[in-house]
Amino acid sequence: MLIGEDKKPFKYRRLRVLEISFFYQVVVALAPNVPALFELHFGVPMAGAVISALNTRLDASTLALALEQLEAKLIFVDYQFTDAVLKALDLLSQKKVNPPHLVVIPECDKSSSMDHKHIASDLDYNCLLEMGRDDFRIIRPNNECDPISVNYTSGSTGKPKGVVYSHRAAYLNSLAEIFRFDMRQMPVFLWTVDMFRCNGWCLTWAMAALGGTNICLRNVSAEIIFDAVSLHKVTHFCGPPAILNTIANAPARASSQSPFPCSVNVVVAGSLPSSEILTKVEGLGFNVYHGYGMTEALGPATIRPWKPESDSTFETEQEEIRRREGLHNLLLEGVDVKDPKTMESVPNDGKTIGEVMFRGNILMSGYLKSTEITQETLKGGWFHTGDLGVRHPNGYLQMKDRAKDIIISGGEAISTLEVEAVLLGHPKVSEAAVVGQPDALLSEVPCAFVKLKEGFGASAEEIIQFCGDQLPDLMIPRTIVFGELPVNFSGKVQKFAMRETISWFGFPLLDYAAWHISTRA
Amino acid sequence: MLIGEDKKPFKYRRLRVLEISFFYQVVVALAPNVPALFELHFGVPMAGAVISALNTRLDASTLALALEQLEAKLIFVDYQFTDAVLKALDLLSQKKVNPPHLVVIPECDKSSSMDHKHIASDLDYNCLLEMGRDDFRIIRPNNECDPISVNYTSGSTGKPKGVVYSHRAAYLNSLAEIFRFDMRQMPVFLWTVDMFRCNGWCLTWAMAALGGTNICLRNVSAEIIFDAVSLHKVTHFCGPPAILNTIANAPARASSQSPFPCSVNVVVAGSLPSSEILTKVEGLGFNVYHGYGMTEALGPATIRPWKPESDSTFETEQEEIRRREGLHNLLLEGVDVKDPKTMESVPNDGKTIGEVMFRGNILMSGYLKSTEITQETLKGGWFHTGDLGVRHPNGYLQMKDRAKDIIISGGEAISTLEVEAVLLGHPKVSEAAVVGQPDALLSEVPCAFVKLKEGFGASAEEIIQFCGDQLPDLMIPRTIVFGELPVNFSGKVQKFAMRETISWFGFPLLDYAAWHISTRA
Repeated sequence: MLIGEDKKPFKYRRLRVLEISFFYQVVVALAPNVPALFELHFGVPMAGAVISALNTRLDASTLALALEQLEAKLIFVDYQFTDAVLKALDLLSQKKVNPPHLVVIPECDKSSSMDHKHIASDLDYNCLLEMGRDDFRIIRPNNECDPISVNYTSGSTGKPKGVVYSHRAAYLNSLAEIFRFDMRQMPVFLWTVDMFRCNGWCLTWAMAALGGTNICLRNVSAEIIFDAVSLHKVTHFCGPPAILNTIANAPARASSQSPFPCSVNVVVAGSLPSSEILTKVEGLGFNVYHGYGMTEALGPATIRPWKPESDSTFETEQEEIRRREGLHNLLLEGVDVKDPKTMESVPNDGKTIGEVMFRGNILMSGYLKSTEITQETLKGGWFHTGDLGVRHPNGYLQMKDRAKDIIISGGEAISTLEVEAVLLGHPKVSEAAVVGQPDALLSEVPCAFVKLKEGFGASAEEIIQFCGDQLPDLMIPRTIVFGELPVNFSGKVQKFAMRETISWFGFPLLDYAAWHISTRA
Repeated sequence: MLIGEDKKPFKYRRLRVLEISFFYQVVVALAPNVPALFELHFGVPMAGAVISALNTRLDASTLALALEQLEAKLIFVDYQFTDAVLKALDLLSQKKVNPPHLVVIPECDKSSSMDHKHIASDLDYNCLLEMGRDDFRIIRPNNECDPISVNYTSGSTGKPKGVVYSHRAAYLNSLAEIFRFDMRQMPVFLWTVDMFRCNGWCLTWAMAALGGTNICLRNVSAEIIFDAVSLHKVTHFCGPPAILNTIANAPARASSQSPFPCSVNVVVAGSLPSSEILTKVEGLGFNVYHGYGMTEALGPATIRPWKPESDSTFETEQEEIRRREGLHNLLLEGVDVKDPKTMESVPNDGKTIGEVMFRGNILMSGYLKSTEITQETLKGGWFHTGDLGVRHPNGYLQMKDRAKDIIISGGEAISTLEVEAVLLGHPKVSEAAVVGQPDALLSEVPCAFVKLKEGFGASAEEIIQFCGDQLPDLMIPRTIVFGELPVNFSGKVQKFAMRETISWFGFPLLDYAAWHISTRA
């Protein structure tokens, strides 16, 4: 069942969007989590075409690049995003590239006569549905390895890449999501994760498989989440860890509506926020599952289940376990931490760092039109995540850092994630990210970018002192930069941009480090 | 986790049973649901071999035939079944066929020095485990379509056939079982279904995938079921519909232990017992799921979920829905009712009879060494079940009869299942089966074999009258044969044997029919 913006169930609409058979033709969609985007996840593949749902936060030039690479013949655009698309089409015309046909998705339940006259095309999503034929026959893939979708990875390195999913991988990942989310028949899913992100972590298809109810959302806010849980008896939702901050920082009015009518599982993928936030969210009655994954693995690949078994009852150890990235996952055949040079597994000692690698059915087919980088990423039969981690004796995986983000200081490897975890423990810190800054003596030293909680002030000395109480000398940031963290269009912190910021302003940016060094000399 | 006969958890045993790599070599097992048989479902395929768990009720000559067809090199035999195997090996020697090596599975937790000296081989299961090496490496299949197991179908026609499962089909069916049983993480499974039946409906592998607890049973009784539910907090068990009779007819002592500590889902596949039984079982707190399948479909293929949605609140209609065989199932791509001649789907009207057919990943690869019958059964790309059924407008499937069991009387098709359902509604009838008996006028007329409940007596007239109140004339049995129903080694009623019984005794067997015909003339 689909529930739209007006909170009413959507009437059943025939999945007969496209009648023309495309041979690996790509149909692009640019829309928030509206029912039409969900429907396109079925209508497009059933018409034999490949769906590429693009990030609605892309600027016109990136959009134009994607449309050109995809050789898109048709684009479905939500009425809110027509401006960006028209600009992108202009850019394509300038490059003499044939622009795709446009189909506008009107506002939910509005007729097609709305104000988008500035679009040359006459096509309107609802009109197109009306034109569908009752005797439409599904065009099935010739081979299960044929592509079903292209998802652009936002990456943390700045350059988006088109990641191709096969029918086989998407089918199996849809099933895998059901296990990861610990779902039973007919769940009620709140669409807080973007459908343009790994096809909504493949939950578009998983929900249909389970006969679930989809609560579609144009925007996400704490109020919307709490209202939906109460009104629709939501059983599951997911997204980046920032969603936990949203819930925890909700105004009292929104969050006072608990206890919930049902158990609510929240799956987040990425670095966990502070323990304070986690405890608050769990206290409100949400079960937090922590996953780790990426676009190339079709979404979260490993999962740390709710309330894991632990040999220890000490709270600090429980807390440490909570921060681990979880277990090898049903349906992902291989999860390993390896030395990328020898391809040997590192020992399961929780200490030896290696590169996290995956193998199995639930991986991308490759990067669109990028054979070389595909081969490089999949060499040795394993998907190289580029993340560094350790494996604990009980099989749990723990991330240490992105390979390119790790700081080598005085010959020692420093995990920036570990420094960030300490910073997030400071009562005034809302967000934190750490990069290496050049150092004449040690080669690199940690530099922290910190965003304080609203209404709070803190000095760099105070933050550095706080870190000094908990970290070995080498790991204590020498420099603190206060302000907004640089994020890309997906909301991911861009460490390469932070490193550029430092070098732009000269080295070091703010000379708190001098003070700090003097106290530690 | 494995729980053995002594109700204690089994210590973890390395899955390193076989170190020799077999290329499609078959390892046979003959054992009840003991932990060793569960372990063999992993050890054998991990050694690169194919497992064939044979029915423990097979007689020596059928056993010898299976061993010869399988070219078995190794057989694991539970200590209770050595006699039958030794007889079978004698038969093989007489035919100059090389007999397989024997490994005896001793009584749970007993040492290997027990009394099976009459076996020539020295090999004992526990000793073999001790010989395993720690550095054993799993031998994976070269191709996902390689065989993982051979399961002999008991069939309802008398001649067992070796049904080959691929790794791919078994993998996907293990996942499918999780959905069919509506399972979440770490279920507690009571092994009431034989592991030698479709590899325990592939639940051997599904349980491992979910981290489940396996309560192994050598025998099944109401007391064992009720005790296990209370002691181990069983969440799921399954088997043929007879298991419901077992529960319903349990002595008061056994069944009085409810309410259960948890919700218990029971999945049965086959013709449902009487409503009285169903109501009683449900009243005890069990959730009954009704499935339909066969060895060739790796177990239950369709499922009628617990408490289905219904447009009607009338009890009789609810009852009718309860008796339908369920819905198209996730992971089984195609379920249809077709005219086997034209291969066209019959209309979804709940009336037009066709042959039930399946298509998709979860089907056998074929019958062992029987290319012709494999091609016949899979012709047109669909698995022909040989069962006749209808499809209701809401998608529910309903069996009408086996194609070969349907009675053609005066040009009309009579579903023997429908006549049996009425007979089972008689308060004194415990079991019933109907076949056609030759009739000079109508070509065939129904003949019923009836087993009465213990301590009850009934006349044929009384039974025929009862049917006459509920069935059209043509469907009323003309003859009633009282006694035990002929069943094969799997407990399936053998209608071909019933037909033979009639012809053996001459026609008709018991002349109640004459009376009946006279009353209806």
